[in-house]
Amino acid sequence: MKILLSLLCCVGVFTLSAQSRYFKESASWLQKSEACKPVLTYTEHKPVKRVTSIKDASAYQGWRMRDEGSTDLLFNESLKKHPSVIVDFGEHLTGYLDFSLKLLSQQVSDAPVRIKFTFAEVPSELNTPFDPYPGGLSRAWLQDEVMTLMTVPIEASIPRRVSFRYLKIELLGASSFDFAFDKLTFRAQTSAKTAPLPLASTTDPLIRKINEVGLLTLKECMQTVYEDGPKRDRRLWIGDLYLEALANAWSYKNHDLTKRCLYLLAALANDEGLLHATVLETPTPHPQNGTHCLDYSLLYNVALLEYLKETGDKEVALDLWPVVVRQIEMALRQYSDDWIYDMQKKPIYWLVFDWKDNYDRQASMQGLTAFSLEKSYELAKMLGKEKEARDWPRIAGQIKKAARKTFYDQKNGVIVSGPNRQVSYLSQVWMILSETLTAKEGAKAMATVLSMPDACYPGCPYAYHYVMEALLKCGMRQEARSLLTSYWGGMVNKGADTFWEVYDPNNDELSPYGFFPINSYCHAWSCTPVYFINKYPEIFQR
Amino acid sequence: MKILLSLLCCVGVFTLSAQSRYFKESASWLQKSEACKPVLTYTEHKPVKRVTSIKDASAYQGWRMRDEGSTDLLFNESLKKHPSVIVDFGEHLTGYLDFSLKLLSQQVSDAPVRIKFTFAEVPSELNTPFDPYPGGLSRAWLQDEVMTLMTVPIEASIPRRVSFRYLKIELLGASSFDFAFDKLTFRAQTSAKTAPLPLASTTDPLIRKINEVGLLTLKECMQTVYEDGPKRDRRLWIGDLYLEALANAWSYKNHDLTKRCLYLLAALANDEGLLHATVLETPTPHPQNGTHCLDYSLLYNVALLEYLKETGDKEVALDLWPVVVRQIEMALRQYSDDWIYDMQKKPIYWLVFDWKDNYDRQASMQGLTAFSLEKSYELAKMLGKEKEARDWPRIAGQIKKAARKTFYDQKNGVIVSGPNRQVSYLSQVWMILSETLTAKEGAKAMATVLSMPDACYPGCPYAYHYVMEALLKCGMRQEARSLLTSYWGGMVNKGADTFWEVYDPNNDELSPYGFFPINSYCHAWSCTPVYFINKYPEIFQR
Repeated sequence: MKILLSLLCCVGVFTLSAQSRYFKESASWLQKSEACKPVLTYTEHKPVKRVTSIKDASAYQGWRMRDEGSTDLLFNESLKKHPSVIVDFGEHLTGYLDFSLKLLSQQVSDAPVRIKFTFAEVPSELNTPFDPYPGGLSRAWLQDEVMTLMTVPIEASIPRRVSFRYLKIELLGASSFDFAFDKLTFRAQTSAKTAPLPLASTTDPLIRKINEVGLLTLKECMQTVYEDGPKRDRRLWIGDLYLEALANAWSYKNHDLTKRCLYLLAALANDEGLLHATVLETPTPHPQNGTHCLDYSLLYNVALLEYLKETGDKEVALDLWPVVVRQIEMALRQYSDDWIYDMQKKPIYWLVFDWKDNYDRQASMQGLTAFSLEKSYELAKMLGKEKEARDWPRIAGQIKKAARKTFYDQKNGVIVSGPNRQVSYLSQVWMILSETLTAKEGAKAMATVLSMPDACYPGCPYAYHYVMEALLKCGMRQEARSLLTSYWGGMVNKGADTFWEVYDPNNDELSPYGFFPINSYCHAWSCTPVYFINKYPEIFQR
Repeated sequence: MKILLSLLCCVGVFTLSAQSRYFKESASWLQKSEACKPVLTYTEHKPVKRVTSIKDASAYQGWRMRDEGSTDLLFNESLKKHPSVIVDFGEHLTGYLDFSLKLLSQQVSDAPVRIKFTFAEVPSELNTPFDPYPGGLSRAWLQDEVMTLMTVPIEASIPRRVSFRYLKIELLGASSFDFAFDKLTFRAQTSAKTAPLPLASTTDPLIRKINEVGLLTLKECMQTVYEDGPKRDRRLWIGDLYLEALANAWSYKNHDLTKRCLYLLAALANDEGLLHATVLETPTPHPQNGTHCLDYSLLYNVALLEYLKETGDKEVALDLWPVVVRQIEMALRQYSDDWIYDMQKKPIYWLVFDWKDNYDRQASMQGLTAFSLEKSYELAKMLGKEKEARDWPRIAGQIKKAARKTFYDQKNGVIVSGPNRQVSYLSQVWMILSETLTAKEGAKAMATVLSMPDACYPGCPYAYHYVMEALLKCGMRQEARSLLTSYWGGMVNKGADTFWEVYDPNNDELSPYGFFPINSYCHAWSCTPVYFINKYPEIFQR
């Protein structure tokens, strides 16, 4: 006999009018976005083994998991004998935990039981106390859930979606009766479907592993939008979208997901037509009001160009063309009369580029603007919109000219930025990608910065993606391969199942949020080795 | 727009065959029990004020609540400004909490929030750390629930049923956006319907208050069975049923609930026909296997007699007559050849009588057996079953004769029990109720024991019920009134909204379970002032 207990019902009510009043097409864009919302694929997973946490200074963040064999005891022995157990699902998964409890022997349940479930992407999350919580983001992102189950036998689910590989199960309350799990399964979900093509058999084994981890990272982030991280923040950001779409084009080829995200962002632009850097799907699609990153807005244009190149879908690109125009206009408003990006001009926009303290973004923004102008003009040409964009090549030229004058230290052959003439990786990168520097100048700048111990180096995989692009653009293939194997390979060698939001080889506990367990350990913007390895296979052979 | 999120679904599966194989009627009894399962009445309640906990050595268990006025701030100001708030619903309630959260201003929710809800029957429950948990029953009975709410606005419910008056709301996790409650309501449930008749206007005010608290206690425990306590254990026990049915007969008169419980207990007797002391309803009706209290089994017979007297429902009494016979047979098996209850004879049964350490139960059991035999014979006569019960008056006589010989200390005029010749209230009580002692002897015994500082006095209201009955039987009306006003009135004076499971005027923190917050503060067996005050109104006038 089955008794259905509807234990919890949550209903969200959302009535804000979220669509942009700037674009008259907003409502239809939102509809088009919803029309290609992907149907998720679900697979059922069981824990593959029990593990215990071992403190190990040589392990990533000081903890590793030791194999303890089968999970049988969870199903055959009283949980009271095993009040704290960690199980390993063997891979990073995103979705919902389902379980049931059964009585052992002829006893009956005479009291509720209380169980704590803690889901972890990496071992340290199970070994770093969450409270008192020192982090700067909501404590609620951490994945520890306490459930009171009023009777045994019972079937239940953890209501929230979680992302994890390791699950710690702690029995916090029980009575005289003995019970065990009858079922412990995970419904994993993704919108990645088509299996990517295999790599050539001659591919270097480490490269093969990096590719695999990148694919898993991307798969986990492919939900009903390209999420930044399935554990946190679980939302669409333009910067992540651009990189995920690049990797998707070389793997799962779910172009409808890219299309959905491009439309969703467009529909939710602000009332000046400026895109929001990030939008959320629930309870109904809405932007994070007031959050604009001007570098991301300019990259939207590039993402749309790449989408068109990949799919030939002119209808979508034409439909969204007004968004491209408006992002350019909004960015150019921030320029001085002599074509320098004015960091002080109101409104002062958040420029992402990297998670890195003290990195001066002015030169990078100058380069990115020129890069976006030229890519947007390329898009205009493909759409027969040259007329509307006729000034862009000239403006790009002026921006680059001004950039060389202001930011290029000819003597040392590097780009400098800000009042302290900071030399950073990214300042070189964006001047290379925008062809403000020639390939030769770029190669020299990159070689110089790579050899400078005090250069401002990137703080996260998102920034390293552009370093990779710049190295390849300058023909520095060996250096690109070397970076890929040392940086992303470094994560693999430290046990990454999926690539991390933040990775500094010199600081395992780095966090932009004041507490490393709140970092996302499966983060979209880190998946681009998939793009590099598959686009440039010749670089990555044995 | 409303989006329904089915966040949690629990399904119980129960397949044990729980019905007694001793009684061929078990299946039909179970059906009859289900047929009169009451439909619950629901009412919606809102918190009436905010309060704060004040440490006060003169208050019950050291804590009292200070009035802080309206609850408006929960609905108008950011919860982040008020991360810990206690609200008072003004009365003890049993049911489900429903709430919704709303955004303040034009911000959007960009992260989940984490809220802890702690429900308390008495102030100390909010001021005594639950962990590390020192109690002897499941920690899961304590009513603290942590919820992760993935977005705001949202509507949600706490999945488990709770019993409480005070609710502490603690914000454990939030993001940059501000939010407040939009709704905070409680769906209270009971199967008590008919309003009891008012007391005479001449009733003493304290008596009036005691009656009111008793009525609320009973109402809260009247669910789909007579529960012992709606916070804990939430199940039917024979001892509680007997007392609740007595009080119900003088108040709500929901006789169908009594009928349901009598049938349910009968259907779930063990395979010898001995009743289980307690049965549970979910996931499907089943007994707590192996839990038999022989005193409770004998009181079942008395409860059935009282039901028949109250309702005239011979059909039910005749149907359940075999249960009465079997309980007598099972009790008599434990007697020695010279008619003394043998505490050592296997199987050794749990005898409840009271929650009291070191109280010797032998004399009480001797008296209760004679009492039950005579009440069961009274039932036999009403049903025309004298033939089957023809030996019972003789046996009762022999048991009483043996009792006087073994337990009556003629010199001191008291009943003694056990190897240490313990003088306890309850030993007197049961010899009085069974008329082993005459009214005169009983009055002397009660007067003696009441004046003995070292007599073993009762530990809980269940036991005091029988003391009340014994005093009244001996004609000690003034002492009965005095006991009622000092004992139950003592709880009222200490702020009781409902009567407690355990109350020792000398020890506010007494707990049979090693931790007083796990005590039930609304307990069925404490509601019988309703019975005494309404049955004997003449005793309780001003």
